[in-house]
Amino acid sequence: MVGVRRSDLFLPATRETPGSGSNAAKLLVRAGLIRNFGSGLWAVTPAGQRVREKLTERVVAAMDAIGGQRVRLPGLQYADRWRESGRWGGFEDEMFTLENRDGQAMCLAPSHEEGVVHLLDGRVRSHADLPLLVYQVESKFRDDHARNGLVRTKEFTMQDAYSVDVDEPGLRETYREVRAAYERVLDDVGLEYAIVEADAGVMGGAASEEFVAPVSDAGGDSDRLVHCTADGCRFGVTDEHDGSDAHATGDACPECGGDLAASDGIEVAHVFKLGTRYSEAMGFTVDTGDGSERRVEMGSYGLGVDRLLQTLAQQHGDSDSLAWPVTGWGSAAPYRAAVIPVGEDSEVLNVAERIHNDCGRDDVLLYDDLSVGERFAESDLLGIPATVVVGNTYRENGVVDVETETGTEELAVEAVAECVERFAASEGEHRVGSGATD
Amino acid sequence: MVGVRRSDLFLPATRETPGSGSNAAKLLVRAGLIRNFGSGLWAVTPAGQRVREKLTERVVAAMDAIGGQRVRLPGLQYADRWRESGRWGGFEDEMFTLENRDGQAMCLAPSHEEGVVHLLDGRVRSHADLPLLVYQVESKFRDDHARNGLVRTKEFTMQDAYSVDVDEPGLRETYREVRAAYERVLDDVGLEYAIVEADAGVMGGAASEEFVAPVSDAGGDSDRLVHCTADGCRFGVTDEHDGSDAHATGDACPECGGDLAASDGIEVAHVFKLGTRYSEAMGFTVDTGDGSERRVEMGSYGLGVDRLLQTLAQQHGDSDSLAWPVTGWGSAAPYRAAVIPVGEDSEVLNVAERIHNDCGRDDVLLYDDLSVGERFAESDLLGIPATVVVGNTYRENGVVDVETETGTEELAVEAVAECVERFAASEGEHRVGSGATD
Repeated sequence: MVGVRRSDLFLPATRETPGSGSNAAKLLVRAGLIRNFGSGLWAVTPAGQRVREKLTERVVAAMDAIGGQRVRLPGLQYADRWRESGRWGGFEDEMFTLENRDGQAMCLAPSHEEGVVHLLDGRVRSHADLPLLVYQVESKFRDDHARNGLVRTKEFTMQDAYSVDVDEPGLRETYREVRAAYERVLDDVGLEYAIVEADAGVMGGAASEEFVAPVSDAGGDSDRLVHCTADGCRFGVTDEHDGSDAHATGDACPECGGDLAASDGIEVAHVFKLGTRYSEAMGFTVDTGDGSERRVEMGSYGLGVDRLLQTLAQQHGDSDSLAWPVTGWGSAAPYRAAVIPVGEDSEVLNVAERIHNDCGRDDVLLYDDLSVGERFAESDLLGIPATVVVGNTYRENGVVDVETETGTEELAVEAVAECVERFAASEGEHRVGSGATD
Repeated sequence: MVGVRRSDLFLPATRETPGSGSNAAKLLVRAGLIRNFGSGLWAVTPAGQRVREKLTERVVAAMDAIGGQRVRLPGLQYADRWRESGRWGGFEDEMFTLENRDGQAMCLAPSHEEGVVHLLDGRVRSHADLPLLVYQVESKFRDDHARNGLVRTKEFTMQDAYSVDVDEPGLRETYREVRAAYERVLDDVGLEYAIVEADAGVMGGAASEEFVAPVSDAGGDSDRLVHCTADGCRFGVTDEHDGSDAHATGDACPECGGDLAASDGIEVAHVFKLGTRYSEAMGFTVDTGDGSERRVEMGSYGLGVDRLLQTLAQQHGDSDSLAWPVTGWGSAAPYRAAVIPVGEDSEVLNVAERIHNDCGRDDVLLYDDLSVGERFAESDLLGIPATVVVGNTYRENGVVDVETETGTEELAVEAVAECVERFAASEGEHRVGSGATD
């Protein structure tokens, strides 16, 4: 990695503000993390991609830690398996369909239950091959009405996982493990969320739960959430499911007695007990060891990476600036620190270079262009958690000012790297408050 | 990572052989690395995904090392920019098109010249913002006639890069850097290839070169290559471009005097000097600092990750087994080693477990099911470069047999990890024969 110098970086910050969506969606555009490609389509810039990669690596580590096996299914698929499952032409009118040059019907997969059955079918034959958990992190496509930036789009990156068990107790256990893995991911990245009972909708199956993040403004997306504000309690209800009318702001949480609060909500993840919904329709069975065949019990799990990115921004930014939570895991901010030289003298510039090198160059943004005022404004807009200022304090006392969420402290040059280390995203599985678990 | 035990792994090896394509394409299916999803569409299994990730990480490191900035553009796009460039409806009839729910024309992007212009347009305004190199590693879509497994498909993963320079000398320099980066990648992973002048075709522009790998059987894909077999010489010509008739097997290489050989060839990468082909059509200019505006000079570069995977397999496997080259960089094999216990006694099983732990559990496959014969056969079929056998030699002498391409050696248990380390894929930029360069 050659290091990130502001003069080399393509960061398309802009004063233009898009007309719709939440304030955070607009800030992501203004800060140059994403750029619109027409209704419901977005590109991610180099800085935005860094946030995506940090979030993706966290969820990949969580899946690997519970024995998930990463695969890659095609996004473009033929109709046959969708006809078998009964979802062809029935995906809430949100499935993109097209024909290939030979006139065969195809679709852009909005979900991969059919694909996973096809991947496993005929190869997974015995109860001894189960349980099995496969996952991918790929684009999904839905012809949805575009709303609120990255929250409701026509193409989006999701980590989607699919489990296969021989019986219902097995499914319950796998479901519990994936649900707990998602909790660890969302806790680590610093999202506030509730886990609410939900309708299975187009996925089908017996039961499902959504991870819904409270936000002040869902940008026109109408999920209404009532959730418990007590630390660690995940109780919540939404108006998509029965029971939300029974609770309101100020009521006591039926689970822990804490205070309930009403707000908009954004669904960031969804876990489904599909049961035999797909194994019945598509004839996916295993032998049980006693000579009989049995339809497998499946689960389906999805966590929206792009959605998570924006929802974090919605919960933590203010009207003028993005902000990314800092936890024991670290931060999803595009860079752990910005180094801002104040002045053009070689003494200051050399120290700024040295700090850039010491701190992990590929994750630290060195400001070597723009005016001093623009440097501070942009670093603030991006939500970079630490700003290392090399200027008068250095000239006078040989120390630098490090500005973080806890205030400004003066540090020796050689102490900066360790100080900003905590703003990096940890690698692998990491549990806030209890150290690494893998 | 919980480690790879054969009993947990979904590896859909099969005795069925698909009807078409090269022998290596069939072996990839038989070994369970990929599975067909209908004409031109493939899924990648957990073991196949590991190979893909090793190759992807290598090419990402190469792009980062020359200052490439990773982005992500949508695969689904509206027609407007394609109409501007003049490629809507003209992409050799290979562009998938569809309509969204509002009747707007869309396509699945087969390439991203238009997307990159849209990403940069209006944000890159000055010569001081250049040069710029952005890249992504994402799915591309082409409604091609499916042939030869992963080589010619309708959806494929490509690392595609796009450069923007202020003038032609700048483009020449950037082109040279990306071309050299691709050489380093292909050298590291152990591909044999020639660099041949090519027609720019649907990309347009002034000049282009292809990286073409000689193979004995292109599986019905008809590129005919004549290339120099001398070490380090990259001379070659194909029948897609003028001049291939002028050379034949046995002729002397016009560049180095070495022996030429004719064979089938597979294009694994392509680099294009686009010049102002897109900046003219789409009005992408920068100010030059003297008050005038100038159309930017662009380059476009693509390396097919899935194609590279299969082409490596074609060059190195035999009729019965896959094989992955071992270089100073390491190997793209799905696992650096297989640990095969011979016997069921706890002494043998415990040592196998210990070696599995010592060697990097997530990259070493521990055989804990199948018969002993099946273990050896499968490890061989997968092309795993080192087989660690724990059996009689251990019981008698306390050492294990490590079988590699250089033969079998007896090693103390604690020496195995270091021995198999060289079969792992190195992280970051690594130059065969000259150590790390970043």
